[in-house]
Amino acid sequence: MYHHTAVGDNLERIRDVFRVAAARSNVVVVTGGLGPTDDDLTREALASFLGRPLELSEEALRELEQFFARRERPMPAENRKQAMKIQGGVLLPNPNGTAPGQYVEAGGVHFFLLPGPPLEMRPLLEREVIPRLKQLFPGEQVLVSRVLHFCGIGESDVDERVQDLTGRANPTVAPLAGEGEMLLRITASGADEESARRLIEPVEQDIRSRFPGYIYGVDDDTLPVAVGRVLRGAGATLAVAESCTGGLLSAMVTEVPGSSEYFRGSVVAYDNEVKQQALGVSASTLAAYGAVSEATAREMAEGVRTRLGATYGLAVTGIAGPGGGSSDKPVGLVYGAVSGPAGTRTVELHLRGSREQVRLRASKRLLWELWRMVSQGVEKKESQ
Amino acid sequence: MYHHTAVGDNLERIRDVFRVAAARSNVVVVTGGLGPTDDDLTREALASFLGRPLELSEEALRELEQFFARRERPMPAENRKQAMKIQGGVLLPNPNGTAPGQYVEAGGVHFFLLPGPPLEMRPLLEREVIPRLKQLFPGEQVLVSRVLHFCGIGESDVDERVQDLTGRANPTVAPLAGEGEMLLRITASGADEESARRLIEPVEQDIRSRFPGYIYGVDDDTLPVAVGRVLRGAGATLAVAESCTGGLLSAMVTEVPGSSEYFRGSVVAYDNEVKQQALGVSASTLAAYGAVSEATAREMAEGVRTRLGATYGLAVTGIAGPGGGSSDKPVGLVYGAVSGPAGTRTVELHLRGSREQVRLRASKRLLWELWRMVSQGVEKKESQ
Repeated sequence: MYHHTAVGDNLERIRDVFRVAAARSNVVVVTGGLGPTDDDLTREALASFLGRPLELSEEALRELEQFFARRERPMPAENRKQAMKIQGGVLLPNPNGTAPGQYVEAGGVHFFLLPGPPLEMRPLLEREVIPRLKQLFPGEQVLVSRVLHFCGIGESDVDERVQDLTGRANPTVAPLAGEGEMLLRITASGADEESARRLIEPVEQDIRSRFPGYIYGVDDDTLPVAVGRVLRGAGATLAVAESCTGGLLSAMVTEVPGSSEYFRGSVVAYDNEVKQQALGVSASTLAAYGAVSEATAREMAEGVRTRLGATYGLAVTGIAGPGGGSSDKPVGLVYGAVSGPAGTRTVELHLRGSREQVRLRASKRLLWELWRMVSQGVEKKESQ
Repeated sequence: MYHHTAVGDNLERIRDVFRVAAARSNVVVVTGGLGPTDDDLTREALASFLGRPLELSEEALRELEQFFARRERPMPAENRKQAMKIQGGVLLPNPNGTAPGQYVEAGGVHFFLLPGPPLEMRPLLEREVIPRLKQLFPGEQVLVSRVLHFCGIGESDVDERVQDLTGRANPTVAPLAGEGEMLLRITASGADEESARRLIEPVEQDIRSRFPGYIYGVDDDTLPVAVGRVLRGAGATLAVAESCTGGLLSAMVTEVPGSSEYFRGSVVAYDNEVKQQALGVSASTLAAYGAVSEATAREMAEGVRTRLGATYGLAVTGIAGPGGGSSDKPVGLVYGAVSGPAGTRTVELHLRGSREQVRLRASKRLLWELWRMVSQGVEKKESQ
């Protein structure tokens, strides 16, 4: 994709954008402006730019009427314009909404008009646009990417250890920005998907051998998904005790469908009384070391593991900011603990950024600590 | 803003985008491409389009060297190009990074080049760009907006009751899309801010009188901020019991800095055993009505309020999906409860959308129910 342009609901300006796009590209994909209201002008603007009339499609009109009939609502008169097709074009059926897409070719430029709502747009892109593009431009090189997700290691440390790879042409290796994690994208081009993948594989293996234990997932994986996978694989369950993250870590674990199979629950203990009563943190630990300490994190993890009856207990306590920091315990200081059948591991983190960033980075880092403990436990079992 | 264009790191294509922009606009604001590396080409592309040379600014070079000196790092040679200025232009100092911005005027078109990272870009926009635009285009009308945040009422219900207002010219009243809430934006133009605000005020009062209890905030307010405000005002504290939202509701409450003043903590009870042991939900209630029921929500709210010693207890239990639904209790069925000094109020919700949407909408709706109970309690006290 060479250009992306956004333009307001104005007939003249949309037409002008079509003129610019058609002069520099041979495929133009447009989203939005196919609704029934007066400010939906994409159809009209393209028809006007191409100098072609709009024609009523009887078939599209019937489908529109059926769409409303299925929802037991009368079709408003204004929706009729959604059945208008640019002369010479093809309507692309949209089963998820009232706005059909359109495909028009003119002067060697291929225009695709798609509805704006992502839930309607994406299926049309996959079913109608991409197959047509493959047919229109056969023999093009195929680009395939593989994204590796790192955690627990700094961006500059990763960059430094792959410098010999980032200069390559095919496949290319490029670092991507992540929040609380780090990503490397390997991209190869080939005559087909298969041959592109064959180029990626040895590079991926090479990178994996350089960072044992740090790559928790690939492509669309997230830390909560990776954690769910290893917990499920180990037949284990999880309980969480949170202070500074305030529920965010639990919310991340439970964003995964089916997480109820391994997640038992959590205690968010903002108040010290709650840390004592609901988690069993001892008053003497809080008095001697404070709520933000390694000792408190340890007791929180062990307490929530025992009280909620889980295989693993995960705990986090720290200072998210912007207030509450001191020279002794500055904003961004976070202690975490993972407690499991083989014991408890603690970690001290010094995180940068806003309140939101400290909370997110702490949550991700602790999820990675858990992932590492559970996957090492599984490895140990498997090697016995 | 009439047009927004994104273009890749290619000198010719960036130059072409400058040509298109300069032909249709008199102000062009560009972000990104001012870094030290080979693919940072914005400076070079604009210089090439304008046919002007780049000149080394001794002052900018000194500032760059000082930037690195403050960080006790040597300045890499490649950073030198960041001190290059387009002939006739003005450098805009960037205290937060190495890339200064630039302002250049040519043929009546005003170009502003800004660094890409938002933390560097925003201060430059506010300090360097907006004041210059005000000076360049004096006497322009000022636009002022006021956004009203609704919850607990459907979008179509709001639309219907403000139809007489949405046709107006000044101020305009427009609905905005929200997730789990609904927004109305009132926008007025005037000779200055003061006179624009005077046009907004009676319309805002009119709208407020039509929706008593539904407008929880204005402008940048969020439900967690509004909830914090009323809890603080009432000198009250909060404890939360979550099932289907899995920690999300607590994470939202604690995203507000200083929330530790009123938030005691929460119990995320995914497992029924946890609901019984940590919240005191009775086994007979779970057996008779199930975990997703009004009775369970009530006992969760009352249990967490008592056990965590808070003024208010808030609870939510439901089926977030995509699995776990039945014809009896479909995905999106959510029960909530708010328990306070004056008793417990429950609510049954039928929410649409993905797992993520159901969880977010349920959390927002329950925060609004809490906001309403606390603010009504305050009103009652005040009127006594």
